[in-house]
Amino acid sequence: MTALPPSIHRLVREFMRLPAVGERSATRIAHFLATTGRDRAKSLADSLEEMVTSVCVCERCHFLAESALCSICSDLNRNAKLLCVVEKPVDVIAIERVREFRGLYFVLNGLWSPLRGRTTEALPIDKLVRRAIDDGVAEVILALGITVEGDATSLYLARVLEGHNIAVTRLAQGLPKGGELEFADERTLAKAFTGRGPV
Amino acid sequence: MTALPPSIHRLVREFMRLPAVGERSATRIAHFLATTGRDRAKSLADSLEEMVTSVCVCERCHFLAESALCSICSDLNRNAKLLCVVEKPVDVIAIERVREFRGLYFVLNGLWSPLRGRTTEALPIDKLVRRAIDDGVAEVILALGITVEGDATSLYLARVLEGHNIAVTRLAQGLPKGGELEFADERTLAKAFTGRGPV
Repeated sequence: MTALPPSIHRLVREFMRLPAVGERSATRIAHFLATTGRDRAKSLADSLEEMVTSVCVCERCHFLAESALCSICSDLNRNAKLLCVVEKPVDVIAIERVREFRGLYFVLNGLWSPLRGRTTEALPIDKLVRRAIDDGVAEVILALGITVEGDATSLYLARVLEGHNIAVTRLAQGLPKGGELEFADERTLAKAFTGRGPV
Repeated sequence: MTALPPSIHRLVREFMRLPAVGERSATRIAHFLATTGRDRAKSLADSLEEMVTSVCVCERCHFLAESALCSICSDLNRNAKLLCVVEKPVDVIAIERVREFRGLYFVLNGLWSPLRGRTTEALPIDKLVRRAIDDGVAEVILALGITVEGDATSLYLARVLEGHNIAVTRLAQGLPKGGELEFADERTLAKAFTGRGPV
């Protein structure tokens, strides 16, 4: 790699720090941008800058937004009685792609993970419970991964939501064991959605 | 995808325009950058800007450089009697990785491709021949892919270099048929280098 100009070498390293980009891909992308893709390099840079300055977090559900509320929370055609709880923003995209669910979301931005020193206090659970009660939510759907942490968090949430006349369900275990939500194919995810049952 | 803020949607599309990045990867990268990877988004943008302003083409061999001559052409320890001709800059990196070759390079930035309307006049062949003669090059190694266009260009170059007391060789066909140089594994490429023979 010593033959590479320093600025391209740096670019390769930056690309390698992105998820799922290895050294070969990073090298290939950097060379493409340095040779035939100059205009795309500029436009990607602009796009990154724009995202950094304009993207914020929806104050209601914590999904990505460009104003106080995200496009889903601002959509009056969505069913506010159904609240889907997910681990991270990208899970919202995975579910939206299926077009099965027309309710609203709540992004935890994490899971209860004692092994990683993440307690339930680090999660916005009070905010979730208050919202479910104040908005008269009929069903909270726990769409968390089928992992140790997803299981623990689901059980915990089911317990704290008890006694408020709110149905608490979880996606059917059509999801493969150990599978992360964001990588599920659309059919599996759709099946998991329709087959959801009580925790 | 409608739920995504426009600036993230744009970012996903920008990443999808890069080589070997599909929709899932692009979405995952954009979300990573919009959430936990904010500082990396900024640093990637800076790196892209820096590359666009500082990278140019070596005036001698057409490899990527940050001054008139690239780091290889400026290296006095390289053997100037050996000249390796490649299709594109990324091929130089592939060969350098093997550490088998200590000569200099000449990047054609294309191949003779009548089917795509690319004639030999579009390639810097006069410059290559003049350099081989003026620098007293002993051997020109044609390290072009084993494709129809790589074959045609190699034969053409062997012919124009005839009669100047310059050996013209080509990488051994250890490369898989139809294979592109940049994807060859290092051992295959090293074998192809040592087994090179006359065109």
